[in-house]
Amino acid sequence: MTDLKSKFLHVYSLLKSELLNDPDFDFTDDSRHWVERMLDYNVPGGKLNRGLSVIESYKLLKLGKELTDDEFFLACSLGWCIEWLQAYFLVLDDIMDGSHTRRGQPCWFRLPKVGMIAVNDGIILRNQISRILKKHFKGKSYYVDLLDLFNEVEFQTAHGQMIDLITTLGGEKDLSKYSLPLHRRIVQYKTAYYSFYLPVACALLMFGENLDKHIIVKDILIEMGIYFQVQDDYLDCFGEPEVIGKIGTDIEDFKCSWVVVKALELCNEDQKKILYENYGKEDPSCVAKVKGLYKELKLQDVYLEYERTSYEKITSSIESHPSKEVQAVLKLFLAKIYKRQK
Amino acid sequence: MTDLKSKFLHVYSLLKSELLNDPDFDFTDDSRHWVERMLDYNVPGGKLNRGLSVIESYKLLKLGKELTDDEFFLACSLGWCIEWLQAYFLVLDDIMDGSHTRRGQPCWFRLPKVGMIAVNDGIILRNQISRILKKHFKGKSYYVDLLDLFNEVEFQTAHGQMIDLITTLGGEKDLSKYSLPLHRRIVQYKTAYYSFYLPVACALLMFGENLDKHIIVKDILIEMGIYFQVQDDYLDCFGEPEVIGKIGTDIEDFKCSWVVVKALELCNEDQKKILYENYGKEDPSCVAKVKGLYKELKLQDVYLEYERTSYEKITSSIESHPSKEVQAVLKLFLAKIYKRQK
Repeated sequence: MTDLKSKFLHVYSLLKSELLNDPDFDFTDDSRHWVERMLDYNVPGGKLNRGLSVIESYKLLKLGKELTDDEFFLACSLGWCIEWLQAYFLVLDDIMDGSHTRRGQPCWFRLPKVGMIAVNDGIILRNQISRILKKHFKGKSYYVDLLDLFNEVEFQTAHGQMIDLITTLGGEKDLSKYSLPLHRRIVQYKTAYYSFYLPVACALLMFGENLDKHIIVKDILIEMGIYFQVQDDYLDCFGEPEVIGKIGTDIEDFKCSWVVVKALELCNEDQKKILYENYGKEDPSCVAKVKGLYKELKLQDVYLEYERTSYEKITSSIESHPSKEVQAVLKLFLAKIYKRQK
Repeated sequence: MTDLKSKFLHVYSLLKSELLNDPDFDFTDDSRHWVERMLDYNVPGGKLNRGLSVIESYKLLKLGKELTDDEFFLACSLGWCIEWLQAYFLVLDDIMDGSHTRRGQPCWFRLPKVGMIAVNDGIILRNQISRILKKHFKGKSYYVDLLDLFNEVEFQTAHGQMIDLITTLGGEKDLSKYSLPLHRRIVQYKTAYYSFYLPVACALLMFGENLDKHIIVKDILIEMGIYFQVQDDYLDCFGEPEVIGKIGTDIEDFKCSWVVVKALELCNEDQKKILYENYGKEDPSCVAKVKGLYKELKLQDVYLEYERTSYEKITSSIESHPSKEVQAVLKLFLAKIYKRQK
């Protein structure tokens, strides 16, 4: 584990302890124990990329100068707020998707004692963000902007999730609804805002910036977020299970993935028929037919071309940004994801 | 319908229309239609007491002077934020409790096309409150206090719900956990804050008051909220189904109700055995035995005595408040609930 990561995890322990001793709620022993277990199970077990990148971004904005202890703690706290937000989304998404495992363990709601209490646990996670912000940022000039930011990003994520849910689950399976603009819309709202824009926006606010003056930064980060999700969709189908750490099931799950959307765009009438007949079915022979078609359409090459042009476009947007520090932040994010295999 | 109620409902239409045309989200036709249906199904169908009382309270603070159009709209908007919050809690509570009906119609998640998408709909409802507050209150001096208030009240409600859930559902049914202090704790957090404190706190903020200076008002409203919930528990068991509009099932559901908690306090060892053997069972003969025991213990008289002393205590707290306007607000709330039969 890197030194940064272990320091970051230390801040998790502090924040958790504050929450478990919140003076505004009179915990019973049972409920305190419940919350502690729920937090440890759901919050710190991911890659922590989103959270760590708040600290890295803030440091780049400071031209690489060392952070004071106070700055470091505050940047970590904002990083953890994003990890808390992620945990909240994942706990609830798993319920909605009927998932079984997450980060190599059963989904929280699958634990026998938990079940639908997990819905309220999700809400608790969201509310703890407000507590952390209030305890450590109330009184800062940017406190209200932080509240607005988290509210806005949560709003957009929930709306993206809604489009995804009503497209994928609502009514009968109908591939004719799937298109590149729809895919873009889902991905932009559901993933890009909170995964890419939010960490940088947190760092900018802490640095004293006005977010209204950083619309271009937002647009570039959203583009990166979309590119990141296209990679995710691609790897779900073409990645090595040993490398990505899971067996993709987007085809079986009738997901509005970039891969199927691209296939729909490129296929002829006969090929379209194959897609319509086999997409979204559990039967391995159906999955094989879809994958065969993807091969015929040379989707791996199409993806490589997409990756190349996205990278070029994003790089050139970054380089036209007037601030070198902001450029450094954006390049950090891009470097982390370019050509990733997992 | 009263004139106030119809004007209040008119504001609902306006707020809904704003939300469905939110410039920060690029709705698909399907998703706009989904949200509209979800709102109409879940938000305006209750008694609207919480929402209307913001307007009534604000008017009393203004010594009964007429509200300007702008003030009226803002007070209605805050009232609707509370109704939205209530809808959010109810949509999710019904999922967690596995309920079937709500306000005389199937619970939202029971509709065939909805199912677990209702979890995300709950989140959307919560997020819409932030949108309403941002659109109409950003720039007001009390904007950040409103955000903090809604966050605090939601936090307390979710924590109260957690204690209720892990006591009632978590692990085996064990009556020995139930006590008057536990009942008070659940009710205070789960119901009293958002139903009683929140409407008055909204009116006070709009009137320019600092909530930190109104701790006594908060305490009195929390006491009223607890009294209100004790009534609810009592009516669930002893109310007329035709009057209260539902058939109570607290006994079957092993609820930590004031009635059972009081029974546990008053019973002898033999009676306790009856309670332990019969509480929380679907079998009508078990329910009858529990009700028989309640009769033996004269719980209806105990309740009347509780109601009398609560009323006196609350009235005397109200009368020692220095402000006549605040007294009027508190008396309005007390009058609405005293000796209610439904």
